[in-house]
Amino acid sequence: MEIPAEVAARLAEGTLIAAIAQDVHSGEVLMMAWMNEEALSKTLHTKKVTYWSRSRNQLWTKGESSGHTQELISARYDCDGDALLLQVEQVGAACHTGERTCFYREIAPAQ
Amino acid sequence: MEIPAEVAARLAEGTLIAAIAQDVHSGEVLMMAWMNEEALSKTLHTKKVTYWSRSRNQLWTKGESSGHTQELISARYDCDGDALLLQVEQVGAACHTGERTCFYREIAPAQ
Repeated sequence: MEIPAEVAARLAEGTLIAAIAQDVHSGEVLMMAWMNEEALSKTLHTKKVTYWSRSRNQLWTKGESSGHTQELISARYDCDGDALLLQVEQVGAACHTGERTCFYREIAPAQ
Repeated sequence: MEIPAEVAARLAEGTLIAAIAQDVHSGEVLMMAWMNEEALSKTLHTKKVTYWSRSRNQLWTKGESSGHTQELISARYDCDGDALLLQVEQVGAACHTGERTCFYREIAPAQ
């Protein structure tokens, strides 16, 4: 897979791209994190989803320490080229808390 | 619905929160946009999804000109409180291009 020109232009400006990971089987949204050019390039070539950690300022291949890897199945990009939607095969929990998805808490309805 | 304390703290810092809209029926991811405190508060109280436009620097109630509204059904927030997952009832196209979803283009597999 090659980085589309529109996305490449964003990355060349130094913009980080939001990457949404979705379970390819259930459609569940698992997490959102960030990619720079190197992270996206590595993800597309290795099929092991790799993000850019803004807090640690380094590449972060999902599951490299936890074993909870994400295998890239397919990738889409949005109309203005600054967000990606990744269909992934998620091993184990996507969230560092041990939950399957990072979006495990609901905003409570009004009483 | 009330803004959770963890999300409120992010917004109080001036951080914009990423909001992912997902079709409540199909599970399709429709778009990603941004919210500030006012946008989220308005969304939770009116159930009409309202974003913060970074390019226009103003609130933007989805569908106010196109008629392609998003009705909020439920909302979840992620483990570090800087992203939201909105289950929505989407009227018509979510994307300004007329496509159902903003993620209508696939990154082509390698030849």
